[in-house]
Amino acid sequence: MAKDIAELREWTAGITDLRRACSVLQWDKDTLMPPLGAPLRAEQLATLERIAHERLTSERTGELVAAAEAELDGIAPDSVDARIVSETRRQYEKDRRVPVELAVARAKAASQGYETWVAARAAGDFSRFAPALERNFQLAREYIDCFDSYDDPYDVVLDDFAPGMRTAHATQLLYEMRDRLMPLIDMLRERDVDVSPLHVDYPVAGQRQLVDQVLRWMGFNDAGWRLDDTIHPFETSFSVTDVRLTTRYHEDYFPAGLYAAMHECGHGLYEAGVEPELQRTPLGLIRSSAIHESQSRLWENMVGRGRAFSSVLAPAVAARSGGALSGLQPDALFRAVNAVQPSTIRIEADEATYGLHIVLRFELERLLLARELEVDDLPAAWNARMQEYLGVKVGSDAEGVLQDVHWSAGLIGYFPTYAIGNLIAGQLWQRVRSDISDLDDQLAAGELQSLREWLREKVHRHGSRYSDPELLAQVVDGPVEVAPFIEYLKAKLGDAYGVGLD
Amino acid sequence: MAKDIAELREWTAGITDLRRACSVLQWDKDTLMPPLGAPLRAEQLATLERIAHERLTSERTGELVAAAEAELDGIAPDSVDARIVSETRRQYEKDRRVPVELAVARAKAASQGYETWVAARAAGDFSRFAPALERNFQLAREYIDCFDSYDDPYDVVLDDFAPGMRTAHATQLLYEMRDRLMPLIDMLRERDVDVSPLHVDYPVAGQRQLVDQVLRWMGFNDAGWRLDDTIHPFETSFSVTDVRLTTRYHEDYFPAGLYAAMHECGHGLYEAGVEPELQRTPLGLIRSSAIHESQSRLWENMVGRGRAFSSVLAPAVAARSGGALSGLQPDALFRAVNAVQPSTIRIEADEATYGLHIVLRFELERLLLARELEVDDLPAAWNARMQEYLGVKVGSDAEGVLQDVHWSAGLIGYFPTYAIGNLIAGQLWQRVRSDISDLDDQLAAGELQSLREWLREKVHRHGSRYSDPELLAQVVDGPVEVAPFIEYLKAKLGDAYGVGLD
Repeated sequence: MAKDIAELREWTAGITDLRRACSVLQWDKDTLMPPLGAPLRAEQLATLERIAHERLTSERTGELVAAAEAELDGIAPDSVDARIVSETRRQYEKDRRVPVELAVARAKAASQGYETWVAARAAGDFSRFAPALERNFQLAREYIDCFDSYDDPYDVVLDDFAPGMRTAHATQLLYEMRDRLMPLIDMLRERDVDVSPLHVDYPVAGQRQLVDQVLRWMGFNDAGWRLDDTIHPFETSFSVTDVRLTTRYHEDYFPAGLYAAMHECGHGLYEAGVEPELQRTPLGLIRSSAIHESQSRLWENMVGRGRAFSSVLAPAVAARSGGALSGLQPDALFRAVNAVQPSTIRIEADEATYGLHIVLRFELERLLLARELEVDDLPAAWNARMQEYLGVKVGSDAEGVLQDVHWSAGLIGYFPTYAIGNLIAGQLWQRVRSDISDLDDQLAAGELQSLREWLREKVHRHGSRYSDPELLAQVVDGPVEVAPFIEYLKAKLGDAYGVGLD
Repeated sequence: MAKDIAELREWTAGITDLRRACSVLQWDKDTLMPPLGAPLRAEQLATLERIAHERLTSERTGELVAAAEAELDGIAPDSVDARIVSETRRQYEKDRRVPVELAVARAKAASQGYETWVAARAAGDFSRFAPALERNFQLAREYIDCFDSYDDPYDVVLDDFAPGMRTAHATQLLYEMRDRLMPLIDMLRERDVDVSPLHVDYPVAGQRQLVDQVLRWMGFNDAGWRLDDTIHPFETSFSVTDVRLTTRYHEDYFPAGLYAAMHECGHGLYEAGVEPELQRTPLGLIRSSAIHESQSRLWENMVGRGRAFSSVLAPAVAARSGGALSGLQPDALFRAVNAVQPSTIRIEADEATYGLHIVLRFELERLLLARELEVDDLPAAWNARMQEYLGVKVGSDAEGVLQDVHWSAGLIGYFPTYAIGNLIAGQLWQRVRSDISDLDDQLAAGELQSLREWLREKVHRHGSRYSDPELLAQVVDGPVEVAPFIEYLKAKLGDAYGVGLD
């Protein structure tokens, strides 16, 4: 290995370790930490963020990257070495425009914002939340001001989660999706589906057993994974063999805990599937939230809410329900979990209305960033758009603007990746079904290994080696498209509702 | 506040944050981490150790300390500011003699050694453990070689846990203690005490409830504390309101889990009691393991195994025993937990034989360091000394040399602080009983607040502001002494055995 590349690898390995250490502190904070631990934890995270930022943006990084670039002559441009160098260059050029004090302030505001969100949500009190929201948006504006080469200010924050994607492109995809979803929703809105099996008292102990069983089918094992409780489910990992999932349980609505766990396990399989030799390199941390969400949404919805998997899921659901769902039939479960029912909560939304929840957030965060909407006016704007897009009335801020953790935790620009992830999942699903001809038979038997291996081979193992367009070109022969997702959804909903949707 | 002192405070606050971050990663590693997370966790810890060491020993620290020292004129030498400066000076002078690669190697060996210990202990196989032991002792020798101003090479490692104490002094204290304990043990060895209440099948669920109750009496609360399971109990904290205790349970020997929890909670009360304004300063991390162990041992033994507290402990033990100990009388519990019975396991030893377990380890680690004993010969030497000091035969390495985590985790020089902690606890106990005249009545009622407040006022709140001799001079008017501990123990054992021991 060339000397300067080796040195760059060593240097960036330390930065990766720091990022992973931050993740450990954050995971602990959001799962197990006693509440009074929060203030000092925020300081500790800020210090780690400061050091990571200082290192990444230091002259030493600049020199090492330049020296390593000089060594790349004759090395394939998509080799691991070349990509470690180019990814470090990309991060260096982006982050060094951001003053360390701003980076630290953003980390602190994110930590504190999360705590504020938890308290405000519990109290259902938006006014407690507003200052943290204002602070995070203000810091995001200052962050955007560090840059100049964008078409739209939102490009800067979107790029943090979907590197290289421009706002215009995201807008085009989201609006095409919206315009194809809305008629579908309208068509199904008045039709009846029996969702009563979802709304039973299902003992939490039984839900835990159910989730345990389903995650083990997916690939969860005790040697390299953990599952814990939290308020807002998330996944994180500290190595390819130390993956942490979280979920939360509702006694009277078991799909919440089950599908959140499948969603997070989809994320976890991605991170667990990265080639081990990449894990201490900049390619070992997943750069693209859009690809990440394609994995979580594929497992949650295309597998978890699919007809095939219902064959094995329904008896598993029935067996642990304490009698509440004894005899539950696969078809009844399949139809219930695919009911298109506009509602107020994003993470419990069906796949058709889900996209509109995202469009709403995308529009509102752009308005807030541009100061075309003030924080104080957000609840009214939120509720009005919920009415417009989904025809639902938001009863309280707790089931409205307070439902999501993202903005409070500084994740501004993240939401579109959920919807784009759905679109990519549609493309991957189309492809894997053609590659594995008996996939449905396997899913119906709870055998998820072929699917997992396919995803690992095509997507997971590469980590952040390829850009999203490069990866998609390899796996689905082209860029992000809306059609495969819509076609998938129409076929599934047509099946669930027993109607033709084309 | 003077400018340079303020800058030093800010700089060392970051180093303290890094140390706390290390503690979070270590706590997670030793409690919840999936086993396959270990290799990368060791890298992450090594990176944090590297950065902390580099910062502490950097020219910037040297310059800031010198500038701050110049500002100290007219400031009381035991003021917080002055002590932050002198403590940083002390750490700087010690750590800058140690090359960063050695510091990192020690951190890595400690992480990996712990994993090796867990596996070797489970397998009862010393040969798996030996290389890690050799490595840790070799690194300790290299560490000692970084220094020259010592009377005895062991001074260097002892100073890490009992700053300022010399080996000659520790030896004198340990041997005086040993020589006063051995006749006591001999006198009681042949007498019978009914220990059968300790060896019942006690459901682990009941043990958990028992521990929960006792810890809450001590001051544990959910807002700022956690209790988790581990293999080798320990305590750590990430702030004064984020204290983490661990214990382990034996179904057939409930005192193990109970007294380990009280011991660790004693540590926790110390760290929770530090003045909050000290917590991000170098004075917020407790420097002296001797004082630390005085707190844990006081709560475990003087409270937990005392006659007074037995009044409330016995019914609590009985009530959660699933009937196994119904009607357990305080007197019976008191006598059972104070039975002097030489045995092989340190952490389950009575207070009289405990000291000899420590002397044995102190002697062996000095021999290993000096290469007067080779690692391969350690089990035989261990077992021979167990026979000599305690008259017990070690059945297997699992209950012999593999029982303790310390050496595998790089904690060489730590053991004496347990015994010295006992001695200090004896002095504190003598003093607090004279200061709080109805202490026994309070303990008998499970009211532990006055004791806790006394310890907080006299010891905890100062953090590392005072050296051990300074602190002891304030609280007990003099240096470490053996007599108060021996007198306390004779009185208690005389009571338990119904004999005169003077």
